[in-house]
Amino acid sequence: MTSNLNTENDFFRKRKILITGGLGFIGSNLAGRLLDLGAKVTLVDSLIPEYGGNLFNIHDVRDRVQVNISDVRDPYAMRHLVEGQDILFNLAGQTSHLDSMRAPDVDLEINCKSQLSILETCRHVNPGIRVVFAGTRQVYGKPKYLPVDEVHPLHPVDVNGINKIAGEMYHLLYSTIYGIRCCVLRLTNTYGPRMRVKDARQTFLGIWLRQIIEGRPIQVFGDGAQRRDFNYVDDVVDALLLASFSDRAVGNVYNLGSPEVLSLKDLALLLVEINGGGRYELVPFGDELKKIDIGDYYSDFHKIELELGWRPKVGLREGLKRSLDYYRRCKTAYWE
Amino acid sequence: MTSNLNTENDFFRKRKILITGGLGFIGSNLAGRLLDLGAKVTLVDSLIPEYGGNLFNIHDVRDRVQVNISDVRDPYAMRHLVEGQDILFNLAGQTSHLDSMRAPDVDLEINCKSQLSILETCRHVNPGIRVVFAGTRQVYGKPKYLPVDEVHPLHPVDVNGINKIAGEMYHLLYSTIYGIRCCVLRLTNTYGPRMRVKDARQTFLGIWLRQIIEGRPIQVFGDGAQRRDFNYVDDVVDALLLASFSDRAVGNVYNLGSPEVLSLKDLALLLVEINGGGRYELVPFGDELKKIDIGDYYSDFHKIELELGWRPKVGLREGLKRSLDYYRRCKTAYWE
Repeated sequence: MTSNLNTENDFFRKRKILITGGLGFIGSNLAGRLLDLGAKVTLVDSLIPEYGGNLFNIHDVRDRVQVNISDVRDPYAMRHLVEGQDILFNLAGQTSHLDSMRAPDVDLEINCKSQLSILETCRHVNPGIRVVFAGTRQVYGKPKYLPVDEVHPLHPVDVNGINKIAGEMYHLLYSTIYGIRCCVLRLTNTYGPRMRVKDARQTFLGIWLRQIIEGRPIQVFGDGAQRRDFNYVDDVVDALLLASFSDRAVGNVYNLGSPEVLSLKDLALLLVEINGGGRYELVPFGDELKKIDIGDYYSDFHKIELELGWRPKVGLREGLKRSLDYYRRCKTAYWE
Repeated sequence: MTSNLNTENDFFRKRKILITGGLGFIGSNLAGRLLDLGAKVTLVDSLIPEYGGNLFNIHDVRDRVQVNISDVRDPYAMRHLVEGQDILFNLAGQTSHLDSMRAPDVDLEINCKSQLSILETCRHVNPGIRVVFAGTRQVYGKPKYLPVDEVHPLHPVDVNGINKIAGEMYHLLYSTIYGIRCCVLRLTNTYGPRMRVKDARQTFLGIWLRQIIEGRPIQVFGDGAQRRDFNYVDDVVDALLLASFSDRAVGNVYNLGSPEVLSLKDLALLLVEINGGGRYELVPFGDELKKIDIGDYYSDFHKIELELGWRPKVGLREGLKRSLDYYRRCKTAYWE
């Protein structure tokens, strides 16, 4: 990793980088890192209120980045933005599983149609670009075995999972057929500063952080026995950077993940402990949520470890502590 | 099979059936059979010139079916048409692999967006409907082993394959989550009367039939060594009917296929022999075609044999003979 990160320092200097979903949780954290590495960064974000974009996420770097408010569904804006870029971090997406069932057409427009349209744009105006696509563990559905590796069958349990499969397959296809250097990372629960905490649209951990800071009980759905893995956002940023400059990564799919696997109940207890107080309560799944819950999930992330040298560095305790600190400090920017 | 077919005779009498792509190759053959079984059949077709719809396909049953010219991309028309139907044979699709690379957005609109929209319509206005979706072996891509069974990984080599994966996954999802009784058949090369023979948009066998009848050499792409399997359309109609009334089929995916596996060269020779003359020539793949060719492909179709009792009954020699007879007789309706 150390040698890789040194390479990074050179690699990103003066590179022209486009981040879709750039005002969102992961996009804004990535932007900050890239700026520190000397890159020239453009952020594109729709700022749709239900999604993750938040201008506060970049308030400390606002004068060092280009910001373009537009929607990945707008092919003309995207054409202009993609032109001349060295790397595209393609992070914009509809992420809510529940919303994908309630408005499947919107999920399709963003997670399928726009992805295909962005890749067509790359092909026509910038075939030399590198692209890293943010995929999701949701493509696997309910695991048939654990930990889940990249050859696990794809049996998504919601519309979002299906559309994200199409999205990543388009990237891999355009890599194979047109030589556009694409890589797909399948993210698991990512958490940390700048995430959406108004609701559970990005991950349930968002709303948990808010609940505990507000002194309300953490709402754990189901029996709380579901085991999951978690990545602190800085580690995900590491993975994105590695995936963007490694030739080995081209045309490949990698799981992210963590060796720390916890039940939701244990996670809630840990959060209470770090917070120095609070409690959780078990809440029965609503019918809609129950149907699309995937139960236990955690990743096998050996492939990215072996091929790109990535491994998460921030432990859950440390990551949660940093997250709580951040939201205690900046909560007004995230609560409404 | 005999007992199943007897069941059919009762099952379909007075059933209200909707067939999307109903003026196309498989749709029109299916319509004829359903009418003989006493069903009340409505056909919906866009009659887009590049696709398979052809009014001549139903000229002998025209007064016994409802025909509605509209596009599956039109949700209002579909809502009206789906209401009150007992079974939907969802066969409309963009089938050309090459066209899917040239106009990926159109393929997405038809093979993803419309499928999701049709299922939403079923969910809202007719959740009791049964749906059979015409999938394709193209979802597998280049086979990793042969014969290809249903658990073979999905690695499509073109946009069409990706969109057809999404299409079938939507059907399975709506079956699991909303209880709409859907089944997916993955078709391999289907051939026979009423297929499109103007070009290779449905299968290369279409244009071959035309070439040999016109006394031109059959154009075999590549070295002709690619091995493939073929189903005569009557056998595919059998499978569709079985899939539509079997409770066992609900939520399942089945390969169709044939025990007769031939190289393209041998198929061309067989066609020449049955025709009583003619010849073939090897034509190098164009760059576009080469990139998306899947090489050898043939199916393992044990699952449908075991679970639904389906097995192809029309041998290749007999099927090709019937096809040649048909196009010799009716060619004027298919040439332009």
